[in-house]
Amino acid sequence: MTEAEFLRALRALPLHPGARGLADDAALVAGLVLTTDTLVEGVHYLPTDPPGDVAWKLVAVNLSDLAAKGAVPEGVLLNLPLGGDAWDRPFLAGLAEILAAYDVPLIGGDTVSLPAGAPRVLTCTALGHDAAAPPRSGARDGDALWVTGTIGDAGMGLAIARGDDGPAALLAAYRRPVPRLADGRALAPHVHAMADVSDGLLIDAAHMAAASGLAVEIDLATVPLSPHAPDDRAGRLAAATAGDDYQLLFAAPAGWSPCVPATRVGRFAAGTGLTLVHGNERVPLPPRLGFEHACIAPGH
Amino acid sequence: MTEAEFLRALRALPLHPGARGLADDAALVAGLVLTTDTLVEGVHYLPTDPPGDVAWKLVAVNLSDLAAKGAVPEGVLLNLPLGGDAWDRPFLAGLAEILAAYDVPLIGGDTVSLPAGAPRVLTCTALGHDAAAPPRSGARDGDALWVTGTIGDAGMGLAIARGDDGPAALLAAYRRPVPRLADGRALAPHVHAMADVSDGLLIDAAHMAAASGLAVEIDLATVPLSPHAPDDRAGRLAAATAGDDYQLLFAAPAGWSPCVPATRVGRFAAGTGLTLVHGNERVPLPPRLGFEHACIAPGH
Repeated sequence: MTEAEFLRALRALPLHPGARGLADDAALVAGLVLTTDTLVEGVHYLPTDPPGDVAWKLVAVNLSDLAAKGAVPEGVLLNLPLGGDAWDRPFLAGLAEILAAYDVPLIGGDTVSLPAGAPRVLTCTALGHDAAAPPRSGARDGDALWVTGTIGDAGMGLAIARGDDGPAALLAAYRRPVPRLADGRALAPHVHAMADVSDGLLIDAAHMAAASGLAVEIDLATVPLSPHAPDDRAGRLAAATAGDDYQLLFAAPAGWSPCVPATRVGRFAAGTGLTLVHGNERVPLPPRLGFEHACIAPGH
Repeated sequence: MTEAEFLRALRALPLHPGARGLADDAALVAGLVLTTDTLVEGVHYLPTDPPGDVAWKLVAVNLSDLAAKGAVPEGVLLNLPLGGDAWDRPFLAGLAEILAAYDVPLIGGDTVSLPAGAPRVLTCTALGHDAAAPPRSGARDGDALWVTGTIGDAGMGLAIARGDDGPAALLAAYRRPVPRLADGRALAPHVHAMADVSDGLLIDAAHMAAASGLAVEIDLATVPLSPHAPDDRAGRLAAATAGDDYQLLFAAPAGWSPCVPATRVGRFAAGTGLTLVHGNERVPLPPRLGFEHACIAPGH
């Protein structure tokens, strides 16, 4: 089964009222926001990524989902494989760093041993409270599409992690993403829809539009790039499809101005699908809109 | 690092007030009980176990932790690897069965792809409500130690799953454990401490005693066995160290009689450690008190 078929089968099971039809990155139960993400060695991170950075990323990607719901972190549960001293100690140090950085306590978890040579599989489940919790599916006809920060930095960082030359800031964007918790808190009560950019700007925007029953148009020329990014169409397309940005993507009424730094990159309209333009020119959709969770291990 | 060292390092991180010092199988947050368990192919289940039974067990072992806190299931989050049609369809069928059997809705989760040939790693996080939530650490000097059901059935079932002959009921005890939700609900308001028997009666009783700052004595002659078990000392020791029983183990005042069928197997007293007797005779502790999460894959 494809991931889409598997998800359809899961959606046919009895769902909790707070599950939001499994169409959001977070669920709502008893006033708490819940989100969970699994990282697989060789799929979601490189086997050569430092263990402390893997710990950071594991927690950060979940806090990013809380950020997109405007939640304050309540704590995390962690399901971790024991990995041997050379892994465990720096992993625990990275974990301590991110928990301290965002004031997130540990609630519980589970530790397991893996068979020798098995790729590591790590899960974090994050709980948040006091969330306005805008859904992914709330965009309205005529809404503007906005994004915080710059897009494509982590994609360039991944290339550096694989051996390319480049600035440390981009490598850090890939290995130590920053969950936009304060931005999310400020935005959540005012926006119609919000999600984080985890798989890529284009694919995440397309998911928001589909969940909202709308079409979305994105102007590549407006996608905010870091100064390190090649500012041509190929560079802009690479940035908009790279993933791992963990910026916030949100839909808000056309006339409204966000209360945090953000860039308007598109608009929603009646219809379906994603349309791409570059200024006044229509751009064909690339074959790949974002990170499809394909294997990124060496040799794949 | 050993699992104990790793756990000590986790306990040194900032802990949520509801984490119970990471010394319980469940945490308490905002009126909810939370528990999470990960199953690894070749470690927690056999690669030859049917996918539908793995789905059942994944959810059942988490519901068993809710049972030990006397909680009503609120729902589950699932972190699942896509496994190919031959795996996915029967897995989803088994999942549908257990969710229906215990009226447990799906709250959310994550699906991932694993590198080819990697052992499956599956995580379930269960939420419960209305729990009296007796801790593992609440046993008192003089309390009796009780256990529900019979002990050792799943251990004999594992031998059958590996190729031995034996009754289907024992194989089912290993592959489709029954979470004791109703028993847990009835017992929880009245007991001082409760946990489920997941790693083995002896090791789980020793953990309860250690968490409570007490010694515990267990009389092997009183351990309740199924009619299929060899009723000699070796058979009783095998049953008491086999694990995967998912019965409820609880501490209650000496004079109190449980409101559900259960067997008194020991008593708590001042001191430390586990003492084993068989009737009037002292029995040396076996080298292995229970399931230590060693690899059970063929060849290990």
